[in-house]
Amino acid sequence: MDAHEKGFFTEADSVEVVTGRNANAKDARLAEVMEVITRKLHEAVKEIEPTQDEWFEAIQFLTRTGHMCNDWRQEFILLSDVLGVSMLVDAINARRPTGASENTVLGPFHVADAPEYEMGTNICLDQKGEDMVVRGRILDTEGNPVAGARIDVWQANDEGFYDVQQKGLQPDFNLRGVFTTGEDGTYWFKAVKPKFYPIPDDGPVGQLLGRLGRHPFRPAHLHYIISAEGYDTLTTHIFDPDDPYINSDAVFGVKESLLADFRKESDPAKAAAMGFAGPYWDVSFDFVLARA
Amino acid sequence: MDAHEKGFFTEADSVEVVTGRNANAKDARLAEVMEVITRKLHEAVKEIEPTQDEWFEAIQFLTRTGHMCNDWRQEFILLSDVLGVSMLVDAINARRPTGASENTVLGPFHVADAPEYEMGTNICLDQKGEDMVVRGRILDTEGNPVAGARIDVWQANDEGFYDVQQKGLQPDFNLRGVFTTGEDGTYWFKAVKPKFYPIPDDGPVGQLLGRLGRHPFRPAHLHYIISAEGYDTLTTHIFDPDDPYINSDAVFGVKESLLADFRKESDPAKAAAMGFAGPYWDVSFDFVLARA
Repeated sequence: MDAHEKGFFTEADSVEVVTGRNANAKDARLAEVMEVITRKLHEAVKEIEPTQDEWFEAIQFLTRTGHMCNDWRQEFILLSDVLGVSMLVDAINARRPTGASENTVLGPFHVADAPEYEMGTNICLDQKGEDMVVRGRILDTEGNPVAGARIDVWQANDEGFYDVQQKGLQPDFNLRGVFTTGEDGTYWFKAVKPKFYPIPDDGPVGQLLGRLGRHPFRPAHLHYIISAEGYDTLTTHIFDPDDPYINSDAVFGVKESLLADFRKESDPAKAAAMGFAGPYWDVSFDFVLARA
Repeated sequence: MDAHEKGFFTEADSVEVVTGRNANAKDARLAEVMEVITRKLHEAVKEIEPTQDEWFEAIQFLTRTGHMCNDWRQEFILLSDVLGVSMLVDAINARRPTGASENTVLGPFHVADAPEYEMGTNICLDQKGEDMVVRGRILDTEGNPVAGARIDVWQANDEGFYDVQQKGLQPDFNLRGVFTTGEDGTYWFKAVKPKFYPIPDDGPVGQLLGRLGRHPFRPAHLHYIISAEGYDTLTTHIFDPDDPYINSDAVFGVKESLLADFRKESDPAKAAAMGFAGPYWDVSFDFVLARA
């Protein structure tokens, strides 16, 4: 019998020694997950060959990350985000047929019970920022309009902050709203052009980004949850393709298919017809829902 | 240009998208380490295909593990221990020529400045437990005795506790001592037979072990740090091969080469010669040091 079959540790059989202990696991899925985690972790350690000091640095990093977590700050989710893990888990759980709009991460700033509005309403409640109209259609994968689709939208303001980050400085429910499509599947609403913003970078994850020569910014975007009876709920963003951080989103949320058309409209007649005093941003994007 | 070369996320190229961001890292070793960690982490996620709930369970587990850490409890080290990572890092950093004694993990209970004793001293200061003599030789890989070798030994008592875990209940420096070999390289001292004990299992790591059907026990052992001028310092344990947990050490510290000979000696004449009132354990083990 080999040493590892007796439960004794060897460098060569390290994975088998450890995962062999899970034979009586009470939770078969957990045992399956831990088998993969143990195997990949040992593969990583064998490839990295960390010194004892490097191993302890990793222990201390994880400890600081844990100590940074509280009711309003989740540093391990940030770590998952900046390592692309959150996006990968989202992608795995939202595989859709070709032609359907792609998912991206939900993010921490969604609020339930945002106000329901008529199409065309301006969701910017404090008039701060560059005027913007957002419009398009909700379609099925055959190109037919989806009636009764619920569009829950939220975004940062022109300084890169969500209302919930600036309680008292922004009106409650600023730049949030829920719209429902009619028979033609079209939607439109007014807002202000959002701005890029940093993820919280005053903790261990921000320090890691710094040492890796990475910035903490997310390019400007609008968040959506679009749901309709009989269709897969779509949680996604649309992005400004001209944002300075469009190719380097700190959390990897950008997919090529989610770049919207952000066009500056300077025609005074069109601005007047929209009720704007001057030039505005005309943003168009069609969303395609996959059948459930 | 492919989407991932523009920095946009795709499931297929998820690793390249993330590690591509480290091109300007200030710390080349960190970038190398994070490339491996990111790649292995994404491989694990792609193999596991976690649901969003499972991903969040992992986030919560890491958070609880971080919150459990304080000045006297290091739950991430425990996690590293029970996943065999601590032993693997130790093995990688202590590869030695064939015939040299193998390392094992240091553990958290070493104390600097333990008393220096003459050979034959009893390091059990409270007379509690089954008498034991431990003896053997410190040799080089050619079988020659090593003179001037410093043997720093420590162990749990017959209830499975170290002195530092029972301040006031055990004398300070109970079951600890430092011995130095003479020209013949032999060593011997008296103590009591140590007992198996559990690692701290009232936290998230203990809960993980429970769900995996694993116990938290370490088989009975004696710790050693053996150092000598011109030789690689050896940090190791010796184990009782008849311990009930010898094949299932919760932290994988057991190596087959570290099983000692624990023999019960019942000859009254030998006991009397040792100064013991009755039967005792006669433990023998030779340590072989590799040249530095």
